[in-house]
Parts: sequence; structure tokens; C-alpha cells
Amino acid sequence: MDSCVIPLRHGGLSLVQTTDFFYPLVEDPYMMGRIACANVLSDLYAMGITECDNMLMLLSVSQKMNEKERDQVMPLMMKGFRDAAEEAGTSVTGGQTVINPWIIVGGVASVVCQPNDFIMPDSAVPGDVLVLTKPLGTQVAVNAHQWLDIPEKWNKIKLVISREEVEQAYQEAMLNMATLNRTAAALMHKFNAHAATDITGFGIIGHARNLAQQQKNNVAFVIHNLPIISKMAAISKAGGNLFGLLQGTSSETSGGLLICLPREQAARFCAEMKSSRVGLSGAVGQNGGAGDGQQAWIIGIVEKGNRCARIIDKPRIIEVPYRGSVVSAQEGSHNNASPPEVQLT
Amino acid sequence: MDSCVIPLRHGGLSLVQTTDFFYPLVEDPYMMGRIACANVLSDLYAMGITECDNMLMLLSVSQKMNEKERDQVMPLMMKGFRDAAEEAGTSVTGGQTVINPWIIVGGVASVVCQPNDFIMPDSAVPGDVLVLTKPLGTQVAVNAHQWLDIPEKWNKIKLVISREEVEQAYQEAMLNMATLNRTAAALMHKFNAHAATDITGFGIIGHARNLAQQQKNNVAFVIHNLPIISKMAAISKAGGNLFGLLQGTSSETSGGLLICLPREQAARFCAEMKSSRVGLSGAVGQNGGAGDGQQAWIIGIVEKGNRCARIIDKPRIIEVPYRGSVVSAQEGSHNNASPPEVQLT
Repeated sequence: MDSCVIPLRHGGLSLVQTTDFFYPLVEDPYMMGRIACANVLSDLYAMGITECDNMLMLLSVSQKMNEKERDQVMPLMMKGFRDAAEEAGTSVTGGQTVINPWIIVGGVASVVCQPNDFIMPDSAVPGDVLVLTKPLGTQVAVNAHQWLDIPEKWNKIKLVISREEVEQAYQEAMLNMATLNRTAAALMHKFNAHAATDITGFGIIGHARNLAQQQKNNVAFVIHNLPIISKMAAISKAGGNLFGLLQGTSSETSGGLLICLPREQAARFCAEMKSSRVGLSGAVGQNGGAGDGQQAWIIGIVEKGNRCARIIDKPRIIEVPYRGSVVSAQEGSHNNASPPEVQLT
Repeated sequence: MDSCVIPLRHGGLSLVQTTDFFYPLVEDPYMMGRIACANVLSDLYAMGITECDNMLMLLSVSQKMNEKERDQVMPLMMKGFRDAAEEAGTSVTGGQTVINPWIIVGGVASVVCQPNDFIMPDSAVPGDVLVLTKPLGTQVAVNAHQWLDIPEKWNKIKLVISREEVEQAYQEAMLNMATLNRTAAALMHKFNAHAATDITGFGIIGHARNLAQQQKNNVAFVIHNLPIISKMAAISKAGGNLFGLLQGTSSETSGGLLICLPREQAARFCAEMKSSRVGLSGAVGQNGGAGDGQQAWIIGIVEKGNRCARIIDKPRIIEVPYRGSVVSAQEGSHNNASPPEVQLT
């Protein structure tokens, strides 16, 4: 499971906890702090938990930074972390900082829950559909952005993407990673989700397999559609199937939730995600604001099977446009303003 | 405070949490795991909390280790951590491991408490006495042990200590660091402790000052006695006041609790620590066993003052013998089989 659930000695309550820490992968320390916080909380959200009682922040400051660099970078990172925690309705009380060769940022999220506050991720049934709440491709976007300064790498992908588009894709990836999965967690209850997980280091197929293995029923997950940040699929192909993005093995950081929902509820789930005014990705630091809800996509189905997961041979790639960018008619054909139907090939 | 206390939405309960992580300081990975666990839990024990609902383990594996080294070292470290958690009556559920240039080991301890499960560290009154539950000198012992292989360092201290004694002091320091402060936490309730903290990185004087500053009453802490692992004071002097051990500034790892107790209760507290059969330092991995309780010392007094702490000019050094070693009559004069009286100079 994404979080551990500890029964307590007090009145049917459980302590649900998770921890995560990693190395910075974006250059903006403030955004990195936000991403780290969103990433930790995501493990709670994957269980349908919408509240967090406390966060601890875990930091290591790089010994290779001079004092001035530290004083510039670390407060911004901490502010990003705290701001995201505040947006999540929780606060950071406690933590620790050490000196280390590399910067580390992460945290611990803890909440004391009643039994119906969380959804055990084990009740998918044949006939459910799979919904994903953020596009894939963050690893490709972050790497492509680094390659702008590495000619031999850039030469491999420059035929399929412009420098400007790389910059936009990188911004898009950052916004997605910094987005809380909190709205999705709340809607999991409303639409009777049967199981969920969040997509991180093992890529969508890795996490889909983990989730399938935990199911009580004999089910299999079949993924038909891959929503991917625009042009990242092309980069992956140009680079010789970079990171296995189209096979679903590319790492994501602070990715979306993969949720098993009853078929008749899924479209409404996606519609409410989009219209929701809580936990908005497009407006980091601002709560609310009309029309900036999150997109979600129906990406596959749950059928009978032996607790495995697969992506079909030629999945439909949904090109997810950069936010705020003007989408041309041609690109817009995959713009996906409403959740696509599942393609049962 | 040593832990954060978060009021919960459920029936007067609080979530108490703490985290700590650091770099290995002893060569034995199993003992290092135990020390890391004892060190994290110590923050709960300092608040008189005797139970822990869950622990997370935080690890980083060094990229400089080859696969064989990793497979030998990391499981031992994890086993040490888990064994200490088990001795503490809790378990490790969750955590994370990353690759890093340096090894990191640490954890998170969480417990959901009722109000009378913990003792807020703010109620010392003039007339209280200060009790310390582990001897000082772990940093000196660990460093002296490293200096056995560094001739220029060893030459500075070899006149005051033998190689064998360094080895014994190092073993003694390891046992002390791996000892849980759990018995002390339980006895804090029994003997009506007014405040406590645990002694770690800031040394005894640093933590005494922190504790003094948190007091509701106008008090000052005055330390008269310094219980120190045998010969470590001599090493510190020979090295030119190494680490400021005699000034109380030498770092400790997983040190004892410094507890403000009513004067009439303190001697009984120390006596029960010694006779206790729970959480024993001398028998790592074994619970219970006659006569292997922990020593505790009355080391100072609480008087009226402005929330500061100091060590008197010529504190009495209590030489704490190595466990199991035969103490000669001469050394035994400071053996301190019973808690010493406070020397009011």
C-alpha cells in the first residue's frame, strides 16, 4: 500500500502514515519544495484520505553549497513545502535537517482516521474502469529540459520539438508535479472508488501491477489510453523509446492517481475533477478560481484475470496540451476537452 | 520540545511525533541500527511517553559501497533498528531508502496519546533536582576509538589511556547509545517529574539551557556533577579540552534523559532505575535479567533564576566504569554504586 495503516488503542482509530524523500529534479527551489510536499501527501490521497494531521519536513543541505547559496535556496524550498502543506489544510510541525553531499527534500505525512475516512485499495471488480488524474511524461520533460544544454543529447530530439516547446513542457511538468491529488481523493468517496494508487517511480505500468496484485477479486487491468504531456511521446520515440514512456515504465514524480471506479461513475468523476475549485494545478498558490480544475482521463478497464496489468499493443496517445498555450486545430484533435471513451480494441 | 504534539480532531487525543536521522558513528552496523532507533524514540521518552504506535525507517545506502557490501551492511543495520523497536514494544511499518554518497540512518516515531500520557517539559520549580540517566562522553569515546589508527591523534592521548581501555570505553559508549530511555520515561510518571529532555547534539549544557528556557517558572539549572564514561574526562583534558566535554558542550548521541524531579523523589527514581528489569542497557536484545538496570545520577539543582543553565566552576567528575569490567579499589572510589548526594558548593 502507499501508506501504512496502524490500528490504534483508541476507539477504532487508525494512524495512517507515509514518508518520501528524494533529490531535487527541477531547478526552482520553491517549486521543488511544493513538489516534495505534494509527493508525500499523494500517498495519503491515494487511499482517499483528504486530511493530514501533521507533516514533518526532512531536508539535507548540500555541503557543496556556499553559505550564500544555502541562504538563498533552502528557505525557498522550505517555503514551497510549507505553502503546499497549507494548501492541503495541514501544517509542518517538526522535521530535521542535516548536511549531506547532495540536497535531499522530503517529508512525513500522518493522519489519525476513522475507518470510513480511507478506502482500502483492494476492491476492484471486473467492469470497473481505470481513471488517471495527471498526464504522464514528467521524467521525459525534466530530462529534455536538461538536454537543452547538452548538444549531443539535444541533437537527438531537436527534430521533433523546439526549444520553446521543451521549456513549456517543463513548466507543464512542474505544475503537474506540484498539484495536490486532494480533489481526486475527495471524489473517490463521492463516486465510490474501489481502489487507487499514485503513479511515481515505477511508472504507470509498475504501479498498475502493484495495485492489481493487491486486489481481493480475480481481476486484470488493461490500459488503452496514455495521456502524456504534449510532445513527450515524440521525444521518447525520437530518442529510441526513451525511459520506456510508451511502455509505461518511465518514472513519474508526484504523478496522478490511478483509480478503479464503477463504469457508470467514471465520466462524472472526470467532469467533477475538471469543474472542481479545490486543489488546483493551474493556479499554484491560489485556491479556487473558475475553470482551472484538473483534467482526468479514463484510460482503461478492469476485466477478469489473475491480478496483472498490461498496456495494449498500440495504446492511444492523448497529447495533453501545455496549460494556457494556444492549441492549434491539428494538435487540438487530441486535446481531449471531455474524457475520451474507452477504446475496447 | 523534543517532539511535536498535534491536537487531533478525535476525543482529546494528540499525535506526538519526532524524527531524527544521522550518519553512522560506530563501525558495527547492527549496533548502529539499534542506536538510531533508540535515538529517535528518545524524543518520545523525554516527554514521559512509554509507548510508540509506529516507526518509519529512513535509510540511504551509500553509492560508494559495492553490492556485496550493501548486502552485508544494510540488512544488519535494519535488523538492529527493528530489534530495538521490538524491545520498545513497537514495530517498523513503512519507511524509505534512497541512494546517497553517505549512509544515512534514522526514523520517525509516532504515537497517539491521551493528555496524561505525556509530561509537558515546562513545570520545573526551585528546589527540584536534576537527574541524568546515562553518562556523558560518547563523542569522546567514539573519536578516541578512531584515533587508535591515527598516530598523530593517538600520541596526544596515549599517556592517559591504554588501547584496551579505549576499546572498552567505545563498547561502553555503544551500549549506552543503544539503551532505550524507556524505563526512565515510565519512572517520570511514578516520581512526578516536572520536565525532561534528552541529551544529544548540543551536549548537556545546550540541552539544559533549552529546557530551562521552556520553563513556566523563574528557574535556573545548576549542574554540580558530571557522570562521564571512565577516562573520557582525562582524554578530553589531555587533548586540550577536547569537544568541551567538561564544559558540557560535547555532543552526545542517543544520550540520557535530563529530568527535573522533586528533591524527595530523586533518590528513589535513581534506585528504581538501577533495579528495573525493563529496557536494559547491559543486555542488548535481552529483556529482563536481574541486576542489570541502568544507573542514574543526581547531577544538579533547580534554583530561582531567569531560565538559564550553568555548570559550576569545578564540577565533580563521576568516573562511570566500563560495564562488566573489574573496578580497582582506586577507580572504584568514584564508582557511584548509589546515587551521589548533590554537592552544594
